[in-house]
Order: sequence, then C-alpha cells, then structure tokens
Amino acid sequence: MSYKRTHDCGTLTAQNIGETVLLSGWVHRRRDHGGLIFIDLRDRFGLTQIVFHPEVAQDMHTLAGDLRSEWVIAVKGKVVARGEGMTNPKLKTGAVEIETSHLEILSKAKTPPFSICDENLNVNEELRLTYRYLDIRRGEIAERLVVRHKTMLAIRNHLDGHRFLEITTPILGKSTPEGARDYLVPSRIYPGTFFALPQSPQIFKQLLMISGMDRYFQIATCFRDEDLRSDRQPEFTQIDLEMSFGSQEELFPMIEEMMGGIFKQCIGVNIQGPFRQITFRDSMERYGTDKPDLRFGMELVRIDAIAKKSSFSVFLDQLQEGCVIKGICVKGGAEASRRIIDGYTQFVGHLGAKGLAWMKMQEGALVSNIVKFFDKAVQEELIAAFQAEEGDLLLFVASNENTTNMALDHLRRHIAKESGLIDKNRYEFAWITEFPLVHWDKDSQTYAAEHHPFTMPYLEDIPLLDSEPQKVRSSSYDLVLNGYELGSGSQRIHSGELQEKIFRMLKLSEEDIKKRFGFFIEALQYGTPPHLGIALGVDRIVMLLTHSESLRDVIAFPKTQRATDLMMDAPSEVLKEQLTELKIHVEPPEV
Amino acid sequence: MSYKRTHDCGTLTAQNIGETVLLSGWVHRRRDHGGLIFIDLRDRFGLTQIVFHPEVAQDMHTLAGDLRSEWVIAVKGKVVARGEGMTNPKLKTGAVEIETSHLEILSKAKTPPFSICDENLNVNEELRLTYRYLDIRRGEIAERLVVRHKTMLAIRNHLDGHRFLEITTPILGKSTPEGARDYLVPSRIYPGTFFALPQSPQIFKQLLMISGMDRYFQIATCFRDEDLRSDRQPEFTQIDLEMSFGSQEELFPMIEEMMGGIFKQCIGVNIQGPFRQITFRDSMERYGTDKPDLRFGMELVRIDAIAKKSSFSVFLDQLQEGCVIKGICVKGGAEASRRIIDGYTQFVGHLGAKGLAWMKMQEGALVSNIVKFFDKAVQEELIAAFQAEEGDLLLFVASNENTTNMALDHLRRHIAKESGLIDKNRYEFAWITEFPLVHWDKDSQTYAAEHHPFTMPYLEDIPLLDSEPQKVRSSSYDLVLNGYELGSGSQRIHSGELQEKIFRMLKLSEEDIKKRFGFFIEALQYGTPPHLGIALGVDRIVMLLTHSESLRDVIAFPKTQRATDLMMDAPSEVLKEQLTELKIHVEPPEV
Repeated sequence: MSYKRTHDCGTLTAQNIGETVLLSGWVHRRRDHGGLIFIDLRDRFGLTQIVFHPEVAQDMHTLAGDLRSEWVIAVKGKVVARGEGMTNPKLKTGAVEIETSHLEILSKAKTPPFSICDENLNVNEELRLTYRYLDIRRGEIAERLVVRHKTMLAIRNHLDGHRFLEITTPILGKSTPEGARDYLVPSRIYPGTFFALPQSPQIFKQLLMISGMDRYFQIATCFRDEDLRSDRQPEFTQIDLEMSFGSQEELFPMIEEMMGGIFKQCIGVNIQGPFRQITFRDSMERYGTDKPDLRFGMELVRIDAIAKKSSFSVFLDQLQEGCVIKGICVKGGAEASRRIIDGYTQFVGHLGAKGLAWMKMQEGALVSNIVKFFDKAVQEELIAAFQAEEGDLLLFVASNENTTNMALDHLRRHIAKESGLIDKNRYEFAWITEFPLVHWDKDSQTYAAEHHPFTMPYLEDIPLLDSEPQKVRSSSYDLVLNGYELGSGSQRIHSGELQEKIFRMLKLSEEDIKKRFGFFIEALQYGTPPHLGIALGVDRIVMLLTHSESLRDVIAFPKTQRATDLMMDAPSEVLKEQLTELKIHVEPPEV
Repeated sequence: MSYKRTHDCGTLTAQNIGETVLLSGWVHRRRDHGGLIFIDLRDRFGLTQIVFHPEVAQDMHTLAGDLRSEWVIAVKGKVVARGEGMTNPKLKTGAVEIETSHLEILSKAKTPPFSICDENLNVNEELRLTYRYLDIRRGEIAERLVVRHKTMLAIRNHLDGHRFLEITTPILGKSTPEGARDYLVPSRIYPGTFFALPQSPQIFKQLLMISGMDRYFQIATCFRDEDLRSDRQPEFTQIDLEMSFGSQEELFPMIEEMMGGIFKQCIGVNIQGPFRQITFRDSMERYGTDKPDLRFGMELVRIDAIAKKSSFSVFLDQLQEGCVIKGICVKGGAEASRRIIDGYTQFVGHLGAKGLAWMKMQEGALVSNIVKFFDKAVQEELIAAFQAEEGDLLLFVASNENTTNMALDHLRRHIAKESGLIDKNRYEFAWITEFPLVHWDKDSQTYAAEHHPFTMPYLEDIPLLDSEPQKVRSSSYDLVLNGYELGSGSQRIHSGELQEKIFRMLKLSEEDIKKRFGFFIEALQYGTPPHLGIALGVDRIVMLLTHSESLRDVIAFPKTQRATDLMMDAPSEVLKEQLTELKIHVEPPEV
C-alpha cells in the first residue's frame, strides 16, 4: 500500500461521505469501545476519526490492536457519517469517520517524555526545548510557525510590489564592534584573523544604495553575543530595508501598508494607516517611555509648576534638587485599599523611586494624607491638570527625570493590565520621531549614538554638533506597537565628511575610524544618493500577531536564555584537530 | 527642491512629451556641445538625456558646468522631443530629453578607480572586488541581482502554493564534521565550547518532518570551510526543502514546475516537464559523468567486446588489466588535422589517459594508423556501434573505468564547445537517479556515504548492506542542467535502527554516533513519517539563468577564491579584549 494521501487530516466533511480515502498521520488518541477501535489520526492540518470494525476487516482490526500513541500510520477506507450523538461540532471533520479497510504501520514510537495530546501540560521549558520536535508536534508552536511563514511571504510580496529587491548580504563579515559583542569565526586560511557574524546588514545595505540598487530589502539573520536579559536570542531575524532618493513621507505609508497586509493576511485584522506620529520628547513626557502602549490612556502629567505652590516639603525638596514631579490618574481607582497602594509603592520602589504619593477624588474633593499641604486653589489646579473625576486615584512620583518616567511608565502599564484596561485584540501603532542623535554615556565618558553612527542629524541642528551634541535631533524613527518597539530606522548620512565628523564626535580615533570604517567612508565619497531605511524585528512581529509570551515561542529551534541549544547540545566541544587546523588554543579552565 | 522622483531614468518616452518631471540619479556621461551641456543621467532602470540650455536657465547651465562623472543630482524640467537625427533607438528613453529648469547637486564624487560608463573594462578582478559597490553600479551585476531576486520570489510563491512553509533554522548549530570542514564560533559563555555554522540544514529539516510540519522549505545560507578550488564560495545559498508522506513521483513534477516558473518569470523561457530520468549507471556509461550536458549527442560507446576481436595490443593489454575501452564519434570531425588530434591527446593526457586512439571515416572506410589491427568485420562492428558516417572522427580511450569516463566526458564537452555544437539558449534538464549508497574511500579505508548518511537504501538492496555495500543503490537523485549539478536529494531513512546500522557501516564508533547524532537517532524513534527532500543551489541556478561565468558574478558581495572579502578586508585581526573574553589564544606565527 502506498502512503500517498488523498486528503489531509483536517479536511473531510459530510460532503465526502461515500468516498474512499487514504490518510496518513500520527496516532493521537486511541479508544477501544464495544469491540471497535477508534483512532484520532493527526497531522498538521487537523484530526480525523478512524474506526476499525472487526467485521469490515478482521486482520486490520487485529493489527490496530497494536497501535500506540504517536505511531505513524497510513489508512485506507470509506468516509462514513458518525453515529447519532457521536458527532463533534468543534472539529471540522467532526461529522465523519473513516471505516478502515487497510492499515499500514509506517513507523513505531517510543513513549514520548511528555504528552502530545493533553492540552494542558505541566512540564518545565527545559524538557520541552530538549524535545523541541515533540513540542512542535503538540500544535501551538506549529501554528505560530505557519503565521511566521505567512508574515515573511506577505512582506516579500509587498516589498517586491514596491520595486524593492531582496539581496543576500554576507554572514561572514568584519568585526566592527560597537554596542553589542560580535560573534567571531576564526579563519583557517589566515590564522590569527577572524570573521564576525553581522549584528545587522547596516553597512552592506548602505553600500547597496551607493551601488545604485535603489531599493533593497532582506529578511536577514543577525547576531549579538549579549548576556541575555529577559527575552533575547543570540540570533534573530530582521526585515531590513533601505531606499534611495526617498523620504519619511514615502517610507512610512509603505511600511504602514506592509503591516496592514501582514495583519490582514495572517490574523484577519484590519489595520488603518496613517499611524500617529509622536516625537521622542512628547512620548517621554506623556508616557515616560519611547515605546508607549497606546491601547489605553492614563497619560503622565507633569506637575512641577503646581507642586511648587504647595507646602509639601518632599516635593519642594525634590524640585530643589532638579527632580521632576509627574503623576497619573487612575480612573475609578479611589477604591484602592491601603494595601494595594502600598503594593504600588513597592512596585515603583524596585524601579528606583523612593516613594509614591497619592490622592483620591472622593465626595467632590481630594483626599489623602498629604492634601493638607495643598491649599484649595492648588488642589483645583491638580484636579484640572489630571481631569480628575469622582472616584479617581492620583499617583505621583518625584525623582530625577529618568527614574520618574521609568517608574510611572511601568506603573501605568502594570495598573492597566491589572484592571483589565487592555484590549488584547487592539493594535495601536505609532511612529516615534526626532530622537536625539547622541546621549552621554557615563561609563565611557563619551557621547554614544542613540540609533547608530550612520544616522543623519537634523540639518537645522548641525551647528549644535560641536557645542551641544546632546541637543541635536536626528532623522530617526521607531515603529512601536502596544508597548513594544518593532524596529527603528533613519535617514542616513550621505556625505563622507559629515560621517567622519560624527565618528570623531563619538570619540573614535582616526586609526580606529580607518581600520573599522575606512572602506565605508571611502565608499561614501564616490557619489552617494540620499537614502533612508528601517529594520523591523520579525520575531517580535510574529510574537505580537500570535499573542505569544516569548520570542522562543515563535522560533522553530530557539536558544535558551543562556544561549544554548538544549536539543542538539550546542555549543559543545570539538575535535582537537579542528582547533589545531585553526591554530587556536582554549585557555584551560580555572581550577 | 526635493529629490523625490516623478519617474526613474528608464521610463520616459515620446508619450511623456510636455510633462514636467523630476529625475534623480548619477551623472553617467557629460558632453558639452554648441553651448549646451548634455548629461546622461543614470539609475538602475536606465539612462535619460538631460539638457542644460543657457537660455532656459542661465544659473543652472552654469551650475551644470561643475558636474563630473558619478555625481548624484536631481533635475526638474520638461520632457521634450530630441532634435531630428538625435534620437537613440537603442535606448527606451531615446526619443526624448529633459530641458532642465532646476538642478540640485545631491553629492559629489571622487574619480572612481575604474570607469563606470565604459562597456569594455580591462581591470583585474581584485580591483573590481575591492570596489564592488562601483562594479555593481556598472550594471551587469545589478541585472543579475535582479534575476536573483526574481528567482527567490518565484521559488517562495511556488512552494507556498504547494503548502510548503518557510521555516528558519539556526545558524549557530553543532559541529558534526563530515565531508567538509565546519566553520566554528567560540562560545563566550561556555569557554572551550563552540558553535558550528551549518553545512546544510539537513538535520533540522528532518527534525521538522518528525515535528509534523509536513512540508518545509528555506532559502538557506550554508557554510563550508574548504580549500576553494575553482568556483566555490565559503557561504552559499540553497533552496532546501523536505516533505512527509511523499515520493519522487510527487516531488519531481513539483520541482520541474518550480524550475519552469523560474525560467519563465526570470528570462521568459518555457521549460517543459517531465524531465528525462537517467540512472547513475546509465549516465556514467553514456556520458562518463553524473552531470551530463544533454544539449548535444556524441555519447560514449563501450567497445570492450569489439576491441577484444582486434589484434591491437594496446587495447588487448589494457583489457587484460581490467581496463575499459570507450569512444566517441565526432560528426564531421574527419577533417581534423594531425595537430588537432595531438591537441586532443594532450587534453586527455592531463586527465590521466595515457593515449588517444583515432579513426576517420573517409571514402566509405575507416582510416587510421591502427586500422590494420582491425579486420574488415570488426571495422564494420565499430562503424555500427558508433553509427559512423562519411566524414566522422572516432576517438578512443583505454584506461581504468574512472579515467576513461572522465577523459571522454571532458573531451566530449571540449569538442562540443570548440565546434559550436552547444546552443546557449537551450536548457536540458535531467534527473539522475539510483546513485550508489556508498563508495569505497581509499584515504580513510572505509565506505563513505555517496549522498549523505541519512539516505534511504533501496529496500530490495538492503540484504547487501553487510556483504557488498558498494552494490547497494540509494533512493537519491540529482537534478542536472547543461552539465551542471543544480542539486541533489533523497528519500531519508525514517527508522532509528536502520540509521544506526548505516552509521556503523560508515565506521562511526558508538561513541561518535552518540556524541554527534545521538539526539537525532533518538528523535527518529518517536514516530517518524517517511520523508524525502532536495537541496538546490540558488547561486548556480542564477548563474545559468544569466549566462554568468562565475558564482562571484551572481552574489552581491562575494568572497575571493582565498575566502576573503577584499572590500571590507575580512577576515581581519580583532581586539585583544575580544579574544580574552572568549578565552582563546592564537598560536604565534611560525618564524
């Protein structure tokens, strides 16, 4: 018997009754019932019920007696209606079953280390990652991989329609360390030298613009050897694109349309452009973050000026020290108990805020242990600033600007989540624009590029480059969705002179510039078109599309947070001869 | 003035006359003529002639006087008809020119190290690779990159239509050395251990079948640290695919249709399936190679039995020693001079053949210095075997089977090329099937997998596995085109027991098997569907589509034959701190 299927396991309905079919798949569940053997046969597309009647085929019924979970079989038989009361409306194939005339066992299976068919599974992630191929078989990850495939195809066809060319750039590149660490690859032919895996194809895509390729994209694997905090992967996937002679006004609608296509094709959701645009400054002011979750309000309000009119010494002292005072208004939050507010105080405490002041709007007035420090008129100003209404709760943080913003950003999202303010099926995109070009890096005591060193400064801010670089805005932009950064991009510098000036401002030495970026600065001098681009995280997009909790859930074979592959046991030791050929030694472990 | 284009440089025709347009691009050529300045403005899409009249805009005419080759400019102006006798029918835009009212210089350019606009360029490849971005600008490589983009998109949409999912597999994997060397990546978190870059996603794609993903594909980057002979690249691109519950009968037409789609969409050529199928044995017999060029005849003919009847001692001695005698018939080749035949003899001499016997059909009979050793009846047999006609030339090699095949394969192609027998616009595909499972490797004194160790043997040949493994045929297949192997694939082993048996036959120790493939053999035991797949070389396909001479011509940023990137200077030295973090030392160079 051949195992060539006539149908997959998710297709047959009452319309197929009477047909002879051949199905192949895995034994999902088996039940023996009144002399009959029932098998739920499974593949990626669904489940179909298979029945073995001793009267229909005695030998096949006997053979079916051997079947165990996860064996792979092929069955031939007739599609028949299920008996009355036996249909399963939840299943697409729930109206029918297969009366089997032939069974072939294609391969047997050991008992898996965890159940494939139980919907709720309580095993640790390590075991699931070690047997990733069985975890995928359970279906949830498989569905996400389907969405991932659809996402990538939607992107490619969309960009092809806008005359972008997908161009593969090298994985074996040059180490130009900055930001994250490079993964290195020793060269055997030139001992002592190394390739580096790309942190992004940034330089290549700019070279492609210099090459005149006009519009480039790539769904590119990128690498960062980081200490993996929270949810990062050492290798990750980006939609990387770049266009010549364009502007944000052309780029934004194209990306918006692309996101619309992805959401429509993958999860059937309509996304409407244009996305709102918020400057970095505005976003920090109103949300305390450059990746605001816009599915709910509860915006941050700065009350420095109002607080100054109070006699509350905590606020006054903080203002004296150059701190800021901001607050949020929790609608209907006045019912919060002392315990709950203490919880919030602890929450912001972990984020560095030394305290959390609060006021409640109750019976038409502000109520709090600190209200006495605010006279009536000042209270009215506060009420107006927050548009506070009966039953609302005001929460305040007074600290340096960073801490205040971070604490209130987290608190805002924490309370929204807790109070069910977040609609999981709402998608609020925004462009964050006008990022500063650089920030002061305390550790290295230098200015560091906010986006990356190839970002174009605002032309009108260029005079500030030497005097007050931190005030220079850049032509860069982030795309954010529901509190996540999907990616960022910028207009690039297309002048070799300006590029060198920026490198020098970032305190790269002449030698360093030459060694690491010399070829690129030279390339910029042979006629570089104005160009801009963006890179978006594919893993993150798929995670949001599928409401997954971790990037690991949307990658077929992910690494752990300690950057290991538990399934294949990598990284691992290699043969001595391999290292001898590469002429490298490993330092013996410390005793 | 904005540089936002209304049109690209390859679009405007007489139909646009009278329109005001904005074009951006590179100064390709400049001519001053009768007080006017003419610029050929270039982008990826074509050339458009730009004119500066002093009467139309004196200041712009003056500014245009500064323009030099490769400067990037934006111009605004009116589309007008070219003067009589000034049109250029070779150019799509050759009927019109732009009467410029505004010019903006977007960026200047140093004089490039080689000309961008000269069609014939005589500079060495090293210089072109160092300035790859300028070489791409010349247009030829750019066109190939467009074909490459179209090829990849055609593949993706075709496979999506057949329910294949593109699934990204890891680049940071495990070293399981065999065949070629792995590129290694030291782990910083676990000093002394290494990741390896994948030579192919073979194990991952089989795991995806075990996962139940049913049909997988990926346009995947693969890596081999080889000593680069001829035309190889350390990183290359494969269309990698795998399907469950399928067979060659399903796979072949799908790939044929995919190739048809690529050829149609990329170069407008119709390819008709089904492709002919030739067994490995047959192909070696008739063409001396497993990748025959089928665009012409001149097949190899074995004449052992006929030669035995001659008295030509060279042939008889060779036969005695177990050699074979094969020949080809060069149609109309009898005019070849002594010098030409001596050339052929030298040619096969370089390939290890000690001599080349020849006969000519002239005036109805065989003519040669050795004809006397063949009596009339034997001569008739020879004539019949080669279907030799008046004016043909017969060439014979007598050596061991490998040498004879190799020499005649090369000679056959050499003569065909020389005599113009090859139609460059003909595409002759074939499947080569029934490869042997293993071959005897003299160096290691073991059997080595012909395809790879996961290949399924022919079921009826399995009893020979222990006794005569070299006689076991495998369910593997190559796709060949015009003398090139495009890729190969096979039905895979889906039983852990059989897989272990094959590993043992290949003389992998138990420990080795466990260490390198243990997780995979275990995976095979949890219910593995029958599955098969193929991997095709994208670079090679694009090379054949574009009639390119080297893989380097179809890769945006290729490596040299010494595995270096001349443009960015990689591999290169890295910072001491980088190696310290990785806890590896480089052996000092020998003095």
